[in-house]
Amino acid sequence: MDKLFVIKIGGNVLDDPSALERFLLLFTQVPGRKILVHGGGKIATRIGEKLGISSHYINGRRITDTDTLDLVTMVYGGLVNRQLVAQLQATGCNAIGLTGADGGCIPAAKRPLVNTDAGPVDFGWVGDIRPEAIPPAFFTSLLEQGCIPVIAPLTHDGKGHLLNTNADTIASSVAVALSQQYHVRLLYCFEKKGILADVQDENSVITRLDRDLYNRLLDSKKLFDGILPKIDNAFAAIGQGVKEVLIGHADDLPDNIGDYTKGTLIL
Amino acid sequence: MDKLFVIKIGGNVLDDPSALERFLLLFTQVPGRKILVHGGGKIATRIGEKLGISSHYINGRRITDTDTLDLVTMVYGGLVNRQLVAQLQATGCNAIGLTGADGGCIPAAKRPLVNTDAGPVDFGWVGDIRPEAIPPAFFTSLLEQGCIPVIAPLTHDGKGHLLNTNADTIASSVAVALSQQYHVRLLYCFEKKGILADVQDENSVITRLDRDLYNRLLDSKKLFDGILPKIDNAFAAIGQGVKEVLIGHADDLPDNIGDYTKGTLIL
Repeated sequence: MDKLFVIKIGGNVLDDPSALERFLLLFTQVPGRKILVHGGGKIATRIGEKLGISSHYINGRRITDTDTLDLVTMVYGGLVNRQLVAQLQATGCNAIGLTGADGGCIPAAKRPLVNTDAGPVDFGWVGDIRPEAIPPAFFTSLLEQGCIPVIAPLTHDGKGHLLNTNADTIASSVAVALSQQYHVRLLYCFEKKGILADVQDENSVITRLDRDLYNRLLDSKKLFDGILPKIDNAFAAIGQGVKEVLIGHADDLPDNIGDYTKGTLIL
Repeated sequence: MDKLFVIKIGGNVLDDPSALERFLLLFTQVPGRKILVHGGGKIATRIGEKLGISSHYINGRRITDTDTLDLVTMVYGGLVNRQLVAQLQATGCNAIGLTGADGGCIPAAKRPLVNTDAGPVDFGWVGDIRPEAIPPAFFTSLLEQGCIPVIAPLTHDGKGHLLNTNADTIASSVAVALSQQYHVRLLYCFEKKGILADVQDENSVITRLDRDLYNRLLDSKKLFDGILPKIDNAFAAIGQGVKEVLIGHADDLPDNIGDYTKGTLIL
């Protein structure tokens, strides 16, 4: 079975030009079949402020109204995705930029009302991926002709609407959808070396994380904010056919695609 | 030889929601292999004003500085292209949105300094297509798996930069590049029924235009502004293997893909 790397890169790397430049060179050097999934970054907030599009939150969660959807379509689907592709082409990587609407490759449904303590909340144009509807042949065809898909955090509902969608979940869903065709390793690259046992100590990387340890860490409330959805996506992938899932630093990519990894291996 | 339609749609149709909706339904009904190339539209100017990005002109010609390139990347490569793809997916058309950087499909060179009466002018991040470098296999592979490329007016220089590029020229260059593989008909769809013998009379469509007649019309200065580059691109395509080139109204698409056309046939 051929290997496939599905590599997710987060906003903190996108927002740092020198970190991004380093990452793109490392990504280009990853041998064989690979897919890049990118998140957003702060640039959407900056451009949104200039356009007078402010962020709305309900219970601390961001709402994607029509203006915000247009903003992320422009910034993530346009500026970020198109520039990443042009930069990768310059490093010899035959990238092709996609949203989930292209080739119908990531079908989703607009999130239904979510019940909260404050009553039902409409999160707006947010997509919940329909993983069973992802067409593996669209991706395999691109991969087998040597193209490298670069996926923006947008999906579509099949009714003409794009949907703002979490990039960690896109990476996990695409990795699962291709796990019948390939030996898939899913890598979440961010600005830490892995999941830390002690959030104050950058070198306290947990090298192997199974569900038992995860539950113990959850109980002791030792995990840093924002990592939980990533870990949940990682376990979901491992449970559905993805062979290996790693969470690690963008600079450690060359190690984390090999046999001796530096990040956190999800078991 | 299989037929391929390369269809260019202009800004005036993109700017008119009901005209665009009609066009997308007609485009979906075009049978077989097809490619859509879209221009810009006024939305970039509107968004540019909000962002404080003003248009710069030298001798009446627009300059693409870095801010303007970012703007058109967001608007044409992001908002317009991504929404067109999502809308086409909803009408049953398996669209895939591209710039010329994706798969390296439209290589270009940054336009060199242009000598004018006022001295050499730098048009900025504007692309001159390198037609000989367009890889037909990238397009044929997508077309043969049933995908419909939707191309934004952006190319790339292979050195990491996107380039603002005339959509009429993209349509003509792609049509030529695929004319060895397919029987190509290139259609320029806009808001007039064709090239008009009398610019005041919307029904004075010239049904067949050859170079002799074109030269006579040029001499008599009867052609309306803005149509000349389109006609030049049309003749360039006919001269390089494209079987048929038509210029006509977006609403006349069903007729203009058939044997009895309503627009102007370039001979």
